[in-house]
Amino acid sequence: MTERDDHPALKGWQSREGELLVGNVPITSLARRVGRTPFFAYDRARLKTRIAELRAELPERLTLHYAIKANPMAALVCFLAERVDGFDVASAGELTKALDAGMAPSKIGFAGPGKTDQELTQALAAGVLVEVESGGELARLSGLAADIGATPRIALRINPDFQLKGSGMRMGGGAQQFGIDAEDAPQIIADGRARGLEIQGFHIFAGSQNLNAETIAEVQTKTLDLALRLADLLASPMRYLNLGGGFGIPYFPKDRPLDLARVGESLATVVDTLAEAQPQARPVLELGRYIVGEAGLYVTRVIDRKVSRGEVFLVTDGGLHHHLAASGNFGQVIRRNFPLVIANRMGAAPQERASVVGCLCTPLDLLADKASLPRAEVGDLVAIFQSGAYGLTASPTAFLGHPDPAEVLV
Amino acid sequence: MTERDDHPALKGWQSREGELLVGNVPITSLARRVGRTPFFAYDRARLKTRIAELRAELPERLTLHYAIKANPMAALVCFLAERVDGFDVASAGELTKALDAGMAPSKIGFAGPGKTDQELTQALAAGVLVEVESGGELARLSGLAADIGATPRIALRINPDFQLKGSGMRMGGGAQQFGIDAEDAPQIIADGRARGLEIQGFHIFAGSQNLNAETIAEVQTKTLDLALRLADLLASPMRYLNLGGGFGIPYFPKDRPLDLARVGESLATVVDTLAEAQPQARPVLELGRYIVGEAGLYVTRVIDRKVSRGEVFLVTDGGLHHHLAASGNFGQVIRRNFPLVIANRMGAAPQERASVVGCLCTPLDLLADKASLPRAEVGDLVAIFQSGAYGLTASPTAFLGHPDPAEVLV
Repeated sequence: MTERDDHPALKGWQSREGELLVGNVPITSLARRVGRTPFFAYDRARLKTRIAELRAELPERLTLHYAIKANPMAALVCFLAERVDGFDVASAGELTKALDAGMAPSKIGFAGPGKTDQELTQALAAGVLVEVESGGELARLSGLAADIGATPRIALRINPDFQLKGSGMRMGGGAQQFGIDAEDAPQIIADGRARGLEIQGFHIFAGSQNLNAETIAEVQTKTLDLALRLADLLASPMRYLNLGGGFGIPYFPKDRPLDLARVGESLATVVDTLAEAQPQARPVLELGRYIVGEAGLYVTRVIDRKVSRGEVFLVTDGGLHHHLAASGNFGQVIRRNFPLVIANRMGAAPQERASVVGCLCTPLDLLADKASLPRAEVGDLVAIFQSGAYGLTASPTAFLGHPDPAEVLV
Repeated sequence: MTERDDHPALKGWQSREGELLVGNVPITSLARRVGRTPFFAYDRARLKTRIAELRAELPERLTLHYAIKANPMAALVCFLAERVDGFDVASAGELTKALDAGMAPSKIGFAGPGKTDQELTQALAAGVLVEVESGGELARLSGLAADIGATPRIALRINPDFQLKGSGMRMGGGAQQFGIDAEDAPQIIADGRARGLEIQGFHIFAGSQNLNAETIAEVQTKTLDLALRLADLLASPMRYLNLGGGFGIPYFPKDRPLDLARVGESLATVVDTLAEAQPQARPVLELGRYIVGEAGLYVTRVIDRKVSRGEVFLVTDGGLHHHLAASGNFGQVIRRNFPLVIANRMGAAPQERASVVGCLCTPLDLLADKASLPRAEVGDLVAIFQSGAYGLTASPTAFLGHPDPAEVLV
């Protein structure tokens, strides 16, 4: 087990006869079934549970979107298409995946600060909502729509004049590449009117990976206030309000899971206020990491066990080329171990401190630094938790020419 | 231009009528020829120049290897196959590229702390030199060789008892996943003898990205001493000594280029001493970044120009998904701007501070933070220098579902 059995990431994972279970399949069997290591495994039951938790705690009128960027695995996107109310996409590639999964274009929003003309044309042809991030983009979109005779569906992404404090990443407030500064929005709305464009509403997203319910609640309230102020400038009643997401998951021992009930309470007020002020506005919550992050494992096999100058190294067939975030090299300022276990020795007492490293010829390829683990041998399986979001696709898979990992939905 | 025209990375790049030249092709023409942006462009002439500089400064008896991990683009590997004396590979994937490029198996070394049985078998079948990193790996290699009736070509990778100070990455000294601790090598050599294996020599590599010629010279001398001590334990005269590499290139304004002449002087002594003590030993210098790093550019187009709360952002069609290192998210502790220019406005005076960002929906996607640049407009081309090594393959290309960049050798 990890250094702390009470690590919040381990909650809900079961084991049997020392084997970690994924979708009730023992990890050794699962590795045989996949046919090779390393692999990512995503647990359907955990995805369903997470969505049920969200549905239970969030107001019924709230529309739940999945942000594909967190994990675009095709089978997973198809699975979620049946269970959420819409998708958010960040590229034409993700748009294709959303449409392939059968999501209705009217339920897809496309955001991104650098949409190309090609991407805007694809979005227009598909009929999805384009979340416009600048005056320049609005002009391009307008021109392209005229060229192909399409009526664009438009929302404005707004860079708010407040921040989401304590976020893993700040995506709003201050100077930003994202969205239209709140104070510039009136001018852009007027510009849209002058171009004869209908702006349906707004997308306001202040930050991601936040574990503090009070902070999230406060930002959602501010977001609503800002949106209502801007809605008065629209030519027609507001029909869309994307409140962003930013719900965090606990990666490290001191992290406490987000108090979803508290966020739900606050959102109920937001949704009620919105319904009163702008009854046609559909409130959208956009979640990626929170839906899939805790449902996924990265599994890699121990190839070598070596002791160098008194320290134990477990050399695996995986590494940062598959799971950059676990190596601490994806936006982290301080490297901390992701929660991990020897997945075929569950329940065994920790016996040693061992560093788990990948197979790459670089000292960056560190999956766990001196973790407290039972003694692992060559052939054992290491499982890294909290790997369902920003894992495979956020990693440099071609680095050093190793094969891609497998991915399975179990 | 960049903040400092005397940035060492700009040395040798020419421009004509405001256009940066790559292989004498103006950047705008090159972008048209490639057919899309973003792309990586590698300059043949610069590769040739760099190899000529190395040949001029390094002792003639020294064997120059290219480490494919720095840049495995097929055409570039083929180009270098004709110009260096051997390749170093870090995976079976790279081994395949080396063989495809026509490099003789006898001139290929395979290092890596986590070689799988499959990879070892491929290396045995190809007849390349396996740089064994642990006693466990030696045992596995021996067993696999017996299984297929192959005679393995073996060197031992040694984790020295000294470090390369001031390296970008430390890969030797202290406790390491790389190689066999120097003090354990006698036991492993004895083990090899007992298994009837011939160990040809050693691979000793202390660190990478070092700009200090004195430090490199000191480490090479220590490397030789260590190798000669260990050579006495071999069953037959030493035939191979990989001295590593670690030659750095200047990324940031205060970086000074490596004094190659000084390193060459020191290496002459090393090579002469080796020739006297172990006349059959082939000394190998393994360079990746130093050969290709300065020959490559990353080129991306400005899609949007926006001002947010007084700050200028140039939003491009590229980003960290293609060039993670330039975003400061690949092993860097402190983010600093890579040298970059508006490549179709060369020679124009800096007019503003602008941040160059990618198209991804993440604040990590920052290619230059408040760089001093001429005023750039939509459609302009940004070129990032020092992008020939650890660029494309060290980046999470699938992140957010955008197309892969093109790569051209010009």
